[in-house]
Amino acid sequence: MTTKTLENLFHETLKDIYYAERKILKALPKMARAAQSEELKAAFQHHREETQGQIERLQEVFELLGKSPRGKTCEAIDGIIAEGEEIMDEFKGSPALDAGLVAAAQAVEHYEIARYGTLKSWAELLKMTNAVALLNQTLDEESATDEKLTALAEGTANPTAIEAA
Amino acid sequence: MTTKTLENLFHETLKDIYYAERKILKALPKMARAAQSEELKAAFQHHREETQGQIERLQEVFELLGKSPRGKTCEAIDGIIAEGEEIMDEFKGSPALDAGLVAAAQAVEHYEIARYGTLKSWAELLKMTNAVALLNQTLDEESATDEKLTALAEGTANPTAIEAA
Repeated sequence: MTTKTLENLFHETLKDIYYAERKILKALPKMARAAQSEELKAAFQHHREETQGQIERLQEVFELLGKSPRGKTCEAIDGIIAEGEEIMDEFKGSPALDAGLVAAAQAVEHYEIARYGTLKSWAELLKMTNAVALLNQTLDEESATDEKLTALAEGTANPTAIEAA
Repeated sequence: MTTKTLENLFHETLKDIYYAERKILKALPKMARAAQSEELKAAFQHHREETQGQIERLQEVFELLGKSPRGKTCEAIDGIIAEGEEIMDEFKGSPALDAGLVAAAQAVEHYEIARYGTLKSWAELLKMTNAVALLNQTLDEESATDEKLTALAEGTANPTAIEAA
């Protein structure tokens, strides 16, 4: 048994987020269909396109690492998405639905922000300059998406939820 | 069947984070035992005490809502913690272990930051002024813990992981 290194840890975490991104790619159209406001539908559709680009960037990082792109079950994202689906079921037809969908999406974004922040700092240590740039680009996109969701919550989803209360 | 309101959504999310906090309380001593550096052990022990206070704040928020404190299974935190346990098993004895533990803890913090941020904004809409103050206090603590973990990663855990590589 050989001792595991930071490069092993980086690779394992890369597989985790690769699985997560592909799962998110599948979940977003369902969230867009469920959303009540046009703004939120559009935001989920836009983020789906962005996610496609993020998956391609991860494939490049695998290549830089000399590994083939392969995911491994990420129980965290499975749980986060399952909770989002529960909200969709339980709050279907409720004026609070969009507020719940935004909250579910922000839990997803924060998971990604944590993982990309970690991966970026490890890539720096491993002197993988090109990987740092790729991971940083996605990290910026995830942070921007999180801020956009906050604006959407404040501008539309939350007021709709409370006005009807 | 009555239409679900923002108050229902707030209550459901409160039950989710209440379960999560109690699960984290149980996970932290295990993470402290696994940590290799004294600094990281101390950080997990300190955060355990903080978590105890956060649970008490949540009990106060339940009271303000006129509900008894009760959790409901949060698949997200179950998944996040399961991934942390996997790191503990797979990287036991590796110089990269602490880097992995910090990453796992930051995934937990980000989940909490997302949930408390959402709960705080909903409490504002519901004009639950005292709940806003309680949730904000915890949100500040979680953000500070996340920053402390980043400092620990940069100062100790990551250098240890890379020096041995």
